[in-house]
Amino acid sequence: MHKVIFDTDPGVDDAMALLFLHRHPEIDLIGITTVFGNASVETTTRNALFLKHAWNIAAPVAKGLGETLNPDRSHVGWPTGIHGEDGLGNIDVPEAIDMPLDPRPAHRFIIDTVRANPGQVTLVAVGRMTNLALALRDDPEVAALVKEVVIMGGAFDVPGNITPAAEANIHGDPEAADAVMTASWPVTVIGLDVTTKTVMTRAKLIDIAARGGASAKLLSDISQFYITFYEQHVDDGMIVHDSCACVYVVAPHLFRTRSGSIRVLCGGIADGQTIQKPYGRLFPPNPWDGLPSQNACVGIEAEAVLKLIGDTLANGR
Amino acid sequence: MHKVIFDTDPGVDDAMALLFLHRHPEIDLIGITTVFGNASVETTTRNALFLKHAWNIAAPVAKGLGETLNPDRSHVGWPTGIHGEDGLGNIDVPEAIDMPLDPRPAHRFIIDTVRANPGQVTLVAVGRMTNLALALRDDPEVAALVKEVVIMGGAFDVPGNITPAAEANIHGDPEAADAVMTASWPVTVIGLDVTTKTVMTRAKLIDIAARGGASAKLLSDISQFYITFYEQHVDDGMIVHDSCACVYVVAPHLFRTRSGSIRVLCGGIADGQTIQKPYGRLFPPNPWDGLPSQNACVGIEAEAVLKLIGDTLANGR
Ligand SMILES: [Ca+2]
Ligand SMILES: [Ca+2]
Repeated sequence: MHKVIFDTDPGVDDAMALLFLHRHPEIDLIGITTVFGNASVETTTRNALFLKHAWNIAAPVAKGLGETLNPDRSHVGWPTGIHGEDGLGNIDVPEAIDMPLDPRPAHRFIIDTVRANPGQVTLVAVGRMTNLALALRDDPEVAALVKEVVIMGGAFDVPGNITPAAEANIHGDPEAADAVMTASWPVTVIGLDVTTKTVMTRAKLIDIAARGGASAKLLSDISQFYITFYEQHVDDGMIVHDSCACVYVVAPHLFRTRSGSIRVLCGGIADGQTIQKPYGRLFPPNPWDGLPSQNACVGIEAEAVLKLIGDTLANGR
Repeated sequence: MHKVIFDTDPGVDDAMALLFLHRHPEIDLIGITTVFGNASVETTTRNALFLKHAWNIAAPVAKGLGETLNPDRSHVGWPTGIHGEDGLGNIDVPEAIDMPLDPRPAHRFIIDTVRANPGQVTLVAVGRMTNLALALRDDPEVAALVKEVVIMGGAFDVPGNITPAAEANIHGDPEAADAVMTASWPVTVIGLDVTTKTVMTRAKLIDIAARGGASAKLLSDISQFYITFYEQHVDDGMIVHDSCACVYVVAPHLFRTRSGSIRVLCGGIADGQTIQKPYGRLFPPNPWDGLPSQNACVGIEAEAVLKLIGDTLANGR
């Protein structure tokens, strides 16, 4: 069993990833921490509680940060054209959910939970990296106690999506992402190099909804708005970015990774770009030297990943 | 016939490219302009005159710039470990060459020659982009009068060579390169994505020297030091970066290109990185918008390119 804390900004593809974590038999979801990104942290926290209630998820929800680590960065608007005004595809999520929040801020929840389960917790982070960076800043020793960090974010050998250089999760808080990538814990980065190859078609989602009961039906309803947005980028269906990071936890053999230290550009026209120095390549002294090697995903067995997602989502329990 | 001005910093692979331009029957080499990079501009100019004399090249040599376009950039040392103390593989080039220089600075030579041959001149630039940028600054109208600009430089979907992000020619003067990439002339960029696939083995070079007479023998002598440097990167032989740009002029069908505006990062840890926005991809407003599309090379028929280089170099006339 993999003990997982899911750091998330639901968000439509976050919702699918959450249902995957909830339903996969080898995953023990021990916490949900929220962060801004696809919507404000108030909205993403409300959405996490909504999904926890709708899907009867036991894990506590802890509310995280609503602004970038660097307070000088100016606020950017929410991507309501992708995730809807409510962050869940405009399905009319109730304004308030009568469910308790964990009393701790997300970064403190992460620190406490990792310290209570040394060497056992996998952090799956699929929003801005702000909570993880603050956990590192408040308690640097926590890095050595985490089993693994799996991130959805970045773009290594391919263009970004929010700019030609940068992917949205990393671009949304570059200083936080640089802190996470350069810390001494094992990070695997699932970026656009591979996630853009995982397109779940409308037909597959209809099939999942038919097999997976009311929970899967809700997921399908949430996803329709997002699928309409993606019509400008893919022929039919939705890119399941965040679910890819969850699949990596249970099926890393479906991914090909490249080792090497990773930096995130902070500032300039390529703000938020992820750049890896491949392990073993020789260069004059440079700002990648001396940092821990992390794994960047550069290959994926997309059909097998989509099948595992579909089978897991459809597997009511 | 292609009228070519060769902007160069000889440099070992520059020497091979120069002999290729001199010997290819469809190229009319109408000028050689020098720039700093592989050595000081005094050394690269001396080397250009040395090769002009040794190979009996008719084209005039005009001396170009010895510092970056932005005077605030600090000077970086010369790569004597790659190109030798003399810039030509430590073959004991005479200190001075008794040959006349064109009286004009390189950028003025470029402007005058392009204006005298409107729509006919191809600029092949295989060193820092400083001379081309100064020509654009002094006479912006010249852009519309150039037939084509072919650059050896940059790294798009692969790591750099001078840093994990940047290739040396672009890194050596990023502001100049950004000006060249964003100007309204047609630019094709032959970068590390393709040049690193063109490795001329020692055996091929020996064969060329045997078939190509004294000129080819001199080229082989010049290249030995550079081949020894490359032992840490390739099994056997030398990457013929600069010659690839020359081959593109006469055999563009051996390359696969991708269209889209190109920016060069100026400053920060990825200083000198080249980033293209692929044509047709949708992004929110960004600093690549509204700029001319240029061609980035992303594929090469390496064996055919190497054969064309070898046959041309061996073809004494
Ligand atoms: Ca997300
Ligand atoms: Ca050169």
